[in-house]
Amino acid sequence: MAIPSEDSAMPITPEQQAQIDEQRADPRPTLRAVSEGMERHLYRAHEVLDHGLVRVIDYMGDDAAITQAARVSYGRGTKSVSNDEGLIRYLMRHWHSTPFEMCEVKFHVKLPVFVARQWIRHRTANVNEYSARYSILDREFYIPAPEHLAAQSTVNNQGRGQVLEGDEAARVLDLLREDAMRSYDHYEQMLSQEGQQGLARELARMNLPANIYTQWYWKVDLHNLFHFLRLRADAHAQYEIRAYAETMCGIVRDWVPFAYAAFEDYRLGGVQLSAKGVEALKRRLSGEVVTQENSGMSKGEWREFEAVWD
Amino acid sequence: MAIPSEDSAMPITPEQQAQIDEQRADPRPTLRAVSEGMERHLYRAHEVLDHGLVRVIDYMGDDAAITQAARVSYGRGTKSVSNDEGLIRYLMRHWHSTPFEMCEVKFHVKLPVFVARQWIRHRTANVNEYSARYSILDREFYIPAPEHLAAQSTVNNQGRGQVLEGDEAARVLDLLREDAMRSYDHYEQMLSQEGQQGLARELARMNLPANIYTQWYWKVDLHNLFHFLRLRADAHAQYEIRAYAETMCGIVRDWVPFAYAAFEDYRLGGVQLSAKGVEALKRRLSGEVVTQENSGMSKGEWREFEAVWD
Amino acid sequence: MAIPSEDSAMPITPEQQAQIDEQRADPRPTLRAVSEGMERHLYRAHEVLDHGLVRVIDYMGDDAAITQAARVSYGRGTKSVSNDEGLIRYLMRHWHSTPFEMCEVKFHVKLPVFVARQWIRHRTANVNEYSARYSILDREFYIPAPEHLAAQSTVNNQGRGQVLEGDEAARVLDLLREDAMRSYDHYEQMLSQEGQQGLARELARMNLPANIYTQWYWKVDLHNLFHFLRLRADAHAQYEIRAYAETMCGIVRDWVPFAYAAFEDYRLGGVQLSAKGVEALKRRLSGEVVTQENSGMSKGEWREFEAVWD
Amino acid sequence: MAIPSEDSAMPITPEQQAQIDEQRADPRPTLRAVSEGMERHLYRAHEVLDHGLVRVIDYMGDDAAITQAARVSYGRGTKSVSNDEGLIRYLMRHWHSTPFEMCEVKFHVKLPVFVARQWIRHRTANVNEYSARYSILDREFYIPAPEHLAAQSTVNNQGRGQVLEGDEAARVLDLLREDAMRSYDHYEQMLSQEGQQGLARELARMNLPANIYTQWYWKVDLHNLFHFLRLRADAHAQYEIRAYAETMCGIVRDWVPFAYAAFEDYRLGGVQLSAKGVEALKRRLSGEVVTQENSGMSKGEWREFEAVWD
Repeated sequence: MAIPSEDSAMPITPEQQAQIDEQRADPRPTLRAVSEGMERHLYRAHEVLDHGLVRVIDYMGDDAAITQAARVSYGRGTKSVSNDEGLIRYLMRHWHSTPFEMCEVKFHVKLPVFVARQWIRHRTANVNEYSARYSILDREFYIPAPEHLAAQSTVNNQGRGQVLEGDEAARVLDLLREDAMRSYDHYEQMLSQEGQQGLARELARMNLPANIYTQWYWKVDLHNLFHFLRLRADAHAQYEIRAYAETMCGIVRDWVPFAYAAFEDYRLGGVQLSAKGVEALKRRLSGEVVTQENSGMSKGEWREFEAVWD
Repeated sequence: MAIPSEDSAMPITPEQQAQIDEQRADPRPTLRAVSEGMERHLYRAHEVLDHGLVRVIDYMGDDAAITQAARVSYGRGTKSVSNDEGLIRYLMRHWHSTPFEMCEVKFHVKLPVFVARQWIRHRTANVNEYSARYSILDREFYIPAPEHLAAQSTVNNQGRGQVLEGDEAARVLDLLREDAMRSYDHYEQMLSQEGQQGLARELARMNLPANIYTQWYWKVDLHNLFHFLRLRADAHAQYEIRAYAETMCGIVRDWVPFAYAAFEDYRLGGVQLSAKGVEALKRRLSGEVVTQENSGMSKGEWREFEAVWD
Repeated sequence: MAIPSEDSAMPITPEQQAQIDEQRADPRPTLRAVSEGMERHLYRAHEVLDHGLVRVIDYMGDDAAITQAARVSYGRGTKSVSNDEGLIRYLMRHWHSTPFEMCEVKFHVKLPVFVARQWIRHRTANVNEYSARYSILDREFYIPAPEHLAAQSTVNNQGRGQVLEGDEAARVLDLLREDAMRSYDHYEQMLSQEGQQGLARELARMNLPANIYTQWYWKVDLHNLFHFLRLRADAHAQYEIRAYAETMCGIVRDWVPFAYAAFEDYRLGGVQLSAKGVEALKRRLSGEVVTQENSGMSKGEWREFEAVWD
Repeated sequence: MAIPSEDSAMPITPEQQAQIDEQRADPRPTLRAVSEGMERHLYRAHEVLDHGLVRVIDYMGDDAAITQAARVSYGRGTKSVSNDEGLIRYLMRHWHSTPFEMCEVKFHVKLPVFVARQWIRHRTANVNEYSARYSILDREFYIPAPEHLAAQSTVNNQGRGQVLEGDEAARVLDLLREDAMRSYDHYEQMLSQEGQQGLARELARMNLPANIYTQWYWKVDLHNLFHFLRLRADAHAQYEIRAYAETMCGIVRDWVPFAYAAFEDYRLGGVQLSAKGVEALKRRLSGEVVTQENSGMSKGEWREFEAVWD
């Protein structure tokens, strides 16, 4: 994955960039496991959407930590790299999740509130979010790029259809921009203490729409991160959270290359077959013609089955 | 706690009330533990804020289930009620949390999004929220009652000060109402498929402010519910979430009276003293004059200490 | 599933059976969801192994509670049964786990300590175990039936091979029985306060072997129970824990028939294919000959692949 | 805390010590937060009980990571150390647990099985235990030192009384040693494949008593570690697990000195007062004589109250 060059990081102010540079300028010795691939990412801002970002703030463990936990051995061991890779693939294939829990990562994420609300449903993680009770939120809103301004899907109740075009697209963008700016103006007016008392921050925030950006620290173990990525890097996930998940996939690939490759093969690229699906494939392999009618599957199941196998 | 009469439940439509009545009209026999106090609450809507509600949808266990788990006995046992109460107080006092985990409750809650965002930080619970990807949200927004329209506290960064008055209060209410209505109008315009494709629901929702109402099913065990209530029924919690917590306290009191009484005595009404606080009180009890300077406490700690003991 | 007749329940003493009968004799009205299939199981002891048992102590929810949570509707709804079944299958197929979390069950389980140690690795559950610090354990030990006395597998490091026979089997059974009895005799001697002080219970218990029986209350939601059953009712699970899992499968089938059927089709009977496995099957379906060498799979993966598809 | 010298670590074999030395000989540069106090502990074995140990295998974060999460700021910040300490004390005092969750530690622990069974009740942690299905356990058993061989308490059902003396102590030690050795001899005989098939490891282990040593990797965040230490470093915890907790307290003190000091003041040294306890102290402070009878407390509560305040 391409490490962002220092000047491409638009959501970062010069002061923030200076802090990042300062943190990256000061390597210190440690006796812990070090992932060279992850060290290159540390603190750097990966841009996501129009004002969002993902940064790695800290991490624990590497591919070897996974196999070490599986072996509960005393040392890093003398096993060859190929053995480590094979063991990691074995663990992933057989749903042995605890060795993957031995790696941990902490991200700093800046994201729209409606994305944060999807994200937080994944409960097995630690979160510290910027507090709008305590502080004032910045005037930053997610406005979709034209190519992501999609119509409601006509076949999928929770999906997108074609990209909006022409006047309709322009109207939508105008409404989103104007409402965001007006809501924020009023947020500031309500908070203002000039010539008035000023509304409590914990109340004023209720006027802000769900495309305003928030930020948080999100810490998770590798097993639960893979679970998150499987659901959120999936083609059925909403584009906006998928953009974050894909950025994180690139980071994890550099951090734990063997584990990520196994995840890609068994989870992202894998397929779950039901007993009926197994039966249908076996009949096809033996030359039979299997249709929805004689498969025992419902129309919905059959459509999904065919999407893979036809 | 007063059970809401059937006509006081304003946030409920006549159709919904008819469903509630239907559910309440059909008792069925069960061999499970039954809490009479909780049966009276089942399905009924407790109003909270201007359009919110809390309803009990299901529950498991009662006071006896807590002591039964502590004893891991075969039957309901022959212990007298006073023993049960004493055992429950003992368990609460000594932080034995697992017996309280043996009770479970499922609520249906309708609440503003900014309250939902605080609530969801409590991760040890099960949640199913109304999906704005899949469905269209209703035009319902929280607008504070005048007595809850408070200024920012001048002493506490995340607290409220005096109630706003006069023109300022009126301006704030106008802004909140107008922005809510306009945002919702635009939400509907963007979704509309009349003469246009219509924006995807998962995108259009981003225009809605944080005081719109959402709803969810929230299921939690009694130990984790007590933890939630201790933090959210506390005087430092934001008023809007406290209103829900207090309603739930009333429900829990009817469900598990012994456990709730112990919770009230040891948690809600209890005080946590630091080693320095213990030392300061012991010196006072022996007649010494203890001040912040000779207490070893910081100014903040001392202020909190004095708030209890002076 | 066959409900145990009252006289077949060997691990239950007459006093315990009297308590069970008493509990089952006293149905009370409730407004909650009731599962008739589960009511028949309540409190009854299902025998497992030589002295173990599984009993349902309480439950919350039924098939309708799963679809209700998915719909977050106000009432039980008017959807036809076939719709409920289809929705439950859809939820299971697409890994929507939260609606299944809306059902909860509490078991009383009596089980050997070495089984308890495997079981407890499933952390998302609530447990209250009989305390050997506080109480004295009974003289009950698991001794395998002859047909379960297996040799170490020669191909699988953590599996069983052939059944032991003749003298070897007899020697093993003698050793297990004698060591259990002697350890328990010494446990009692150390605890005895006749003519001596008597060792603390929390210390004396360390002399007891891992085949002694313990018991606990174990409470879990349906999603996490399915996860447990998928791993522990699997052919690769150790026989002794599988015996419990299979008993519980029978109970869950009676409790939530639609959810259990979906679980059986998609999880127990399902197959997870890697990207490489999908590729290999597609090539076979198009008439190609695929071998381990040209599949990209390791020998281990290929062996597992062939076990399903050959 | 004293770092163990290299020759005092008795439970470590020379090969293991060589591996530890090798790991400690190879510092590598990292950009992550580094705790100098924790680096000194990494990999070293701290002896606990007769054959047990605790080793730090990895860690994430330091005191600054806690305050950084609380501030959700971009950099390490320019706040002075005294501010960090004050903020950490504030967070601990007000039960703000999420910033403490931002630190993580991974231990390698060798411990008797009966201690492991208490330990594992703390569910919010990641565990990989040595598998006795897969491998053969070593011949290592916990035999209490004479000063820890205690009688059953006559006042506390789950506590210890006086130390056993003379013949009784000698008899107990003989029984524990002999039963351990005999059980292990039979374990080996059943496993042996000389002249017989050899019992499966997953079955043979059931003959081993609860004082045999096992080992695991245990990974936990700082908030949950503090919760564990508060319960297990407490005077009421069983001595054997307390010995581990106290060793870990020493390690945590070196890792995050500010957080540990706050934990010591507010948790380990703190006192929880009930509403009745607060009332009783206020009356005493105003000169009143408060007795159990006029306090509203039960005898048990009063005894615990007096133990602190008299």
